[in-house]
Amino acid sequence: MVSKNKAAFILSLQKRKVREEEKLFVAEGDKIVREFIEAGMEIVTLVAKPEFIAALGERNRNRIMELIPASFDELRRVSTLKTPHNALAVVRMNESISVTAPGSRGISLVLDSIQDPGNMGTIIRAAAWFGIRDIYCSPDSVDLYNTKVIQSTMGALLHVKVHYLELAPMLEKAGCRIFGAVTGGESIYSLTLSGQGLIVLGNESRGISAQLLPFISDIITIPRFGPEAPGIESLNVGMAASVILSEFRRRG
Amino acid sequence: MVSKNKAAFILSLQKRKVREEEKLFVAEGDKIVREFIEAGMEIVTLVAKPEFIAALGERNRNRIMELIPASFDELRRVSTLKTPHNALAVVRMNESISVTAPGSRGISLVLDSIQDPGNMGTIIRAAAWFGIRDIYCSPDSVDLYNTKVIQSTMGALLHVKVHYLELAPMLEKAGCRIFGAVTGGESIYSLTLSGQGLIVLGNESRGISAQLLPFISDIITIPRFGPEAPGIESLNVGMAASVILSEFRRRG
Repeated sequence: MVSKNKAAFILSLQKRKVREEEKLFVAEGDKIVREFIEAGMEIVTLVAKPEFIAALGERNRNRIMELIPASFDELRRVSTLKTPHNALAVVRMNESISVTAPGSRGISLVLDSIQDPGNMGTIIRAAAWFGIRDIYCSPDSVDLYNTKVIQSTMGALLHVKVHYLELAPMLEKAGCRIFGAVTGGESIYSLTLSGQGLIVLGNESRGISAQLLPFISDIITIPRFGPEAPGIESLNVGMAASVILSEFRRRG
Repeated sequence: MVSKNKAAFILSLQKRKVREEEKLFVAEGDKIVREFIEAGMEIVTLVAKPEFIAALGERNRNRIMELIPASFDELRRVSTLKTPHNALAVVRMNESISVTAPGSRGISLVLDSIQDPGNMGTIIRAAAWFGIRDIYCSPDSVDLYNTKVIQSTMGALLHVKVHYLELAPMLEKAGCRIFGAVTGGESIYSLTLSGQGLIVLGNESRGISAQLLPFISDIITIPRFGPEAPGIESLNVGMAASVILSEFRRRG
């Protein structure tokens, strides 16, 4: 049974401030919760249908600090979804996915003020698929632990480290090629790429901020093949990330 | 002012059956509504803040059959969003974007039972960017005129024709190369592509249906560069579409 206090606490984790104080976040969905448990993430509380809990197996169950069997209605009380899944977990933030020191391992992504949780999730998924290990985000980017981001990553964040830090000082010290995705730059298909470097993607409406542009060594653009017309001014940033990473890997 | 009857009618357009009977659909959002008006789509009803209506200009205003100035609260009554935009339009389906005869102009996409409105929107946007003019969808695919699809296309559907039809007979008669995105096939980077053909993308969880597999002449796969691990079993279908179209265009 989900107590009133427990429900209030779980819902309070929708606030970034509370998440950061508690070092906890919420993951919703059968598949992602199972993946987090199996990956050894610390599960502080699992609220789930009895069948879900039974199917976990004893070894997995023993790893969970608090198990709360719940009905559909109880799950709805703690969920942000109209139709909740069978499982919701309160998960301890893993320090290995929230360190803030820049590293330099091959190609990394730099996200300048990405706001949409779905885009952030898509980018993390693309990064995991293409073997990118680090993503550096400006402090005003959408929070990695936002429930919608967690849901749309589909567990990919187990494989990518996401760092939040001031980007300008980091880029200044980077000492490698810094690619920036901007419309009207050189075609990514003809540019010489490299196996090491940073790829900067900008905010959904403003693009890369003026303050960061001086650090860009190579402007890259995904050429448009359709007409220049309203409605197709740009590719969505998640799609752009996928195409750019594909192109780096293909040639790297 | 939005009358009770008008509000009920607009909300009824959330149902696919009603949309198909009325040949009308709803577009929400300042930018997309403006684009639809400017592109000459037939706007049956515009519900919008007075400022939005004033900013349209006389020529655009005169094209609209019914103008309803509305407050935020009135917009909320007809919107599916918690926080409505400044404009919502009831738009006549354009027969040029709902014809059902297959064509063969360069590369086209074939979508086998795509269910997620966001994915459908992303794919249409990618298609428009990469100059794809036709998308063929199985009849059980998510409806193009679903409000969420319309919103996520960002107006790109003005440039792409989306057809709903039985796919097996169409593929049988196609007479061109039929590429199918499947995991474990030949790397898209090494396969010889062509400037003419169909690219089949499958359902989000089941992939391409067994019934269509015999028609595939070339299995294509986007290689994974990250580890083979839970959480990264596949790329999202919208991301896959972007990468595949980029690769066809780059070489085409």
